[in-house]
Amino acid sequence: MRKTKPEPALTAAEHKAAILRENRRVTSYDVALLAGVSQSAVSRCFKPGASVSKSTYARVMKAAAGLDYIPNAAARSLITRRSNMVALIISNFVILYHPGALAELSQQITRRGKRVLLFTTQHESDVEQILSSVWQYQVDGVIAAAALSEQQVQEFERRQVPLVVFNRNLHEQQVNSVFCDQYEAGRLMAAHLAAAGHRRFGLITGPEESPIASERRRGALEYLAEIGLPPPVIATGQFDYASGARGLREIVSRLGHAPDAVMCGNDLMAIGCIECARHELGIDVPGQMSITGFDAVEAASWPSYNITTMRQPIQKMAQAAADMLAALIESNGGEAEKRVFPPLLVDGGTARIAPSVRDSLAA
Amino acid sequence: MRKTKPEPALTAAEHKAAILRENRRVTSYDVALLAGVSQSAVSRCFKPGASVSKSTYARVMKAAAGLDYIPNAAARSLITRRSNMVALIISNFVILYHPGALAELSQQITRRGKRVLLFTTQHESDVEQILSSVWQYQVDGVIAAAALSEQQVQEFERRQVPLVVFNRNLHEQQVNSVFCDQYEAGRLMAAHLAAAGHRRFGLITGPEESPIASERRRGALEYLAEIGLPPPVIATGQFDYASGARGLREIVSRLGHAPDAVMCGNDLMAIGCIECARHELGIDVPGQMSITGFDAVEAASWPSYNITTMRQPIQKMAQAAADMLAALIESNGGEAEKRVFPPLLVDGGTARIAPSVRDSLAA
Repeated sequence: MRKTKPEPALTAAEHKAAILRENRRVTSYDVALLAGVSQSAVSRCFKPGASVSKSTYARVMKAAAGLDYIPNAAARSLITRRSNMVALIISNFVILYHPGALAELSQQITRRGKRVLLFTTQHESDVEQILSSVWQYQVDGVIAAAALSEQQVQEFERRQVPLVVFNRNLHEQQVNSVFCDQYEAGRLMAAHLAAAGHRRFGLITGPEESPIASERRRGALEYLAEIGLPPPVIATGQFDYASGARGLREIVSRLGHAPDAVMCGNDLMAIGCIECARHELGIDVPGQMSITGFDAVEAASWPSYNITTMRQPIQKMAQAAADMLAALIESNGGEAEKRVFPPLLVDGGTARIAPSVRDSLAA
Repeated sequence: MRKTKPEPALTAAEHKAAILRENRRVTSYDVALLAGVSQSAVSRCFKPGASVSKSTYARVMKAAAGLDYIPNAAARSLITRRSNMVALIISNFVILYHPGALAELSQQITRRGKRVLLFTTQHESDVEQILSSVWQYQVDGVIAAAALSEQQVQEFERRQVPLVVFNRNLHEQQVNSVFCDQYEAGRLMAAHLAAAGHRRFGLITGPEESPIASERRRGALEYLAEIGLPPPVIATGQFDYASGARGLREIVSRLGHAPDAVMCGNDLMAIGCIECARHELGIDVPGQMSITGFDAVEAASWPSYNITTMRQPIQKMAQAAADMLAALIESNGGEAEKRVFPPLLVDGGTARIAPSVRDSLAA
């Protein structure tokens, strides 16, 4: 005669009713009791990659379903000291003008089995306040699209929280980061325009507090000074459409005429600048004046604009950042690494570019 | 002689060294011991709004700073059964084309002292998988910009997790929601165009799976049928630039000529449609053909487009959703409420609109 296993004393429904009467949560012990296995076996069944026999797995899942059991992330976090969450610190500006970066980072993190705890800031300088929350949630790691101070970076080290800085080059800091070389992008754009014979430059730069804006500006200014061109007329914008138009008005009024070229700190300001030149000041672009952007956002490619700009490989950068963080979480650190992606000239229709450059782009 | 309080046996540094030797986390009990108060007093000091004396607070904060104590969100969550997190479920599409909605929701949630656990989906239909994660993290509530099934909504009720559905009208479902009336927006736009004498319509609608696209389409089709106009030629797009251009080509080729008006399911498709009409098909907009959009995104207002479109008050809607969720978390529910915001016609330059309508908009 076949030996049968003894049935558990209570059915799932009876067990559940008892828990309800006691007004408490279903725990892994309830599932273990009902399934006739140990609590640690239940725990292993809910841990990705843990070893467990097929029959145990089936019994545990049946019992868990019967009791509506859901493993508690907070309880697991206390035991494993991992929350399975990655904090993403990102400014409102990045969300509004580079939503693709956020979408890509979120997908890349999720694909690696982690959840995204999102922190948005009005200004990059608000980051201190955010960090105190980050410590409380014991996140597995952090991706920060923000300029962190040396003290803040050290705080990550001291607390042993893996950190990857996204699209910010923290000079002289030992920190894992993934970014596009904005200084080089500024130099390259200035070089292309100078090679095509532009002499008198206007610059509409992004806000003072943006490290990206200041790297691009520094690259352009240093290159133009090196080749002996007069210093450009500079207007400061806010990276938005309106300040592109305002910046062009300011530059033209200070110069008394249109410059040969206006380098805008991003595409959105370039669009404002183009619209102002066309519809308000009646300046022919690029016949009379060249206008360039940075970023290669989608709108820059629409036929009405077709902006000459610089592309950053945002998707590749997001993937690299997520990879780097995953490796840090597994390995518990090592030497800080900086992965620098080169910018790429997009030869649009708003700037005269030297024929030799055009040929090399086409090649 | 003044009575002095006995000093704690160990200094903060000694206490911390002992904890390090034991290779364990600093707990609220360590802080209590060092501060010479009870653990519950420490706990109250870190709970927003809890009552505690000034001197106790000062002693606890000093001890906490000395020990580098950070309250553990996971531990607190187990005790209070609240994680202080709000899950935000949002599709990639919404992030890419309505980044303002995400930025506003995140800010509104943060302003109310909650953290944002972000779940992004490729398709609205992926939501089932996301929900199992949501249950694990024991979030205080959920804002979902997704079409939930009746079963899914019931699961929220059963688990007593407060839910607000954002910008989706779940017909016949008792669920708290905040949305713009897309059906009405479709009717209104069709009515405006018909009143200005347009007779032959093309429709470039959003993807089948989008409830917003289908509401807008239904509103337009029902209105045009009611006033006895011929059924429009319909092309289906993906809400992106390319499908606006493709849609216009399809409509013109099926009709054999340009229709009087093309209603596009969103502004991005309208931009693709305008560029194709101007640069490819040589159709004068709005002289020969009117084109309209929906959403009033920023690009729609740029002079090169100046699109006739419908605005949804996204900022007000985000605020309303966050308010509603906060109230639900406090009150533990009540009658389901639907807050419906009316759409607003933006009288741009891409459609002929009846003078009477223009007058009423100007008034």
